[in-house]
Amino acid sequence: MGHTDNPVIDAILKRRSIRKYTDEAISREDIITIMEAGQWAPSGLNNQPWRFMVVTRDDPRHDKLATCTKYAHIIRGSYACIAVMLEKKAIYSPMKDHQGAGACIQNMMLAAHSLGLGTVWLGQIVNDQTASLNALDKSENEYELQAVIALGHPDQKGSADRKPLSELLLEDF
Amino acid sequence: MGHTDNPVIDAILKRRSIRKYTDEAISREDIITIMEAGQWAPSGLNNQPWRFMVVTRDDPRHDKLATCTKYAHIIRGSYACIAVMLEKKAIYSPMKDHQGAGACIQNMMLAAHSLGLGTVWLGQIVNDQTASLNALDKSENEYELQAVIALGHPDQKGSADRKPLSELLLEDF
Repeated sequence: MGHTDNPVIDAILKRRSIRKYTDEAISREDIITIMEAGQWAPSGLNNQPWRFMVVTRDDPRHDKLATCTKYAHIIRGSYACIAVMLEKKAIYSPMKDHQGAGACIQNMMLAAHSLGLGTVWLGQIVNDQTASLNALDKSENEYELQAVIALGHPDQKGSADRKPLSELLLEDF
Repeated sequence: MGHTDNPVIDAILKRRSIRKYTDEAISREDIITIMEAGQWAPSGLNNQPWRFMVVTRDDPRHDKLATCTKYAHIIRGSYACIAVMLEKKAIYSPMKDHQGAGACIQNMMLAAHSLGLGTVWLGQIVNDQTASLNALDKSENEYELQAVIALGHPDQKGSADRKPLSELLLEDF
């Protein structure tokens, strides 16, 4: 895992889920930059079905959102959460729109990493769509919650492992 | 859209779908680096359900794959295609695994961009799973094709537009 000469590949290989944050605030400008990264994800037919909502720790809905997941402590420790939803009427293919949401979320996490910020992709929280969307004052008729990205200044290094590429590559080439 | 001082955000904002390629070959090392970027995508429960297959223009399956899509000319003009599949028995949540595949594909396209290479995410080709997987000598019982990434040295600049962030952000914060 070299590539420290290529900052994009370096970010991709070194980004880790960060679940502990310091109390330091994050600028509005950085949060907008992160969402702009999501905005530029590719989507099938360029339908751009993703919608965002930022809930900072000063917003009462931040704690309400925390009650919708067993990872409440991560949300409570974060400076802000970015909820990523699909607008249901913009969906043209569930599989492809879910893929697009994933590309969008990954862009945001890479952008945050490049700004020195930590994120974790919270997926368990979307299992109860009714409760989570209700915490955000949003309607399940209109939106499908894709993930909540918790965001803060890192207070841990994070760790991860991956299968070797040989297990993922079905044939040599 | 500044951020040229941040190479990660710059790559995210400036990557475009590239559908025309020169004849120049791509090194095996670069293709492996691109797949390593995919390898490091996040997945729910770290299940890493993605599997890859590289089909270069010297492989007879390259042209066979081309016949499975109306974008045959893009595949035929590419140096290689990377087929991204989910291993069906590794899937734990269709929505979350499709999101993960999207994050994986986006990592690969960003890595390719950072290496000066062009890609396009081919999605229409997955509509006929039977034909596409058959062209790859893979079984529909085992794999779900997520996308084919066409890869080559760029012979066009590419262009794209996106909705303004104000249309994506459901509330100010």
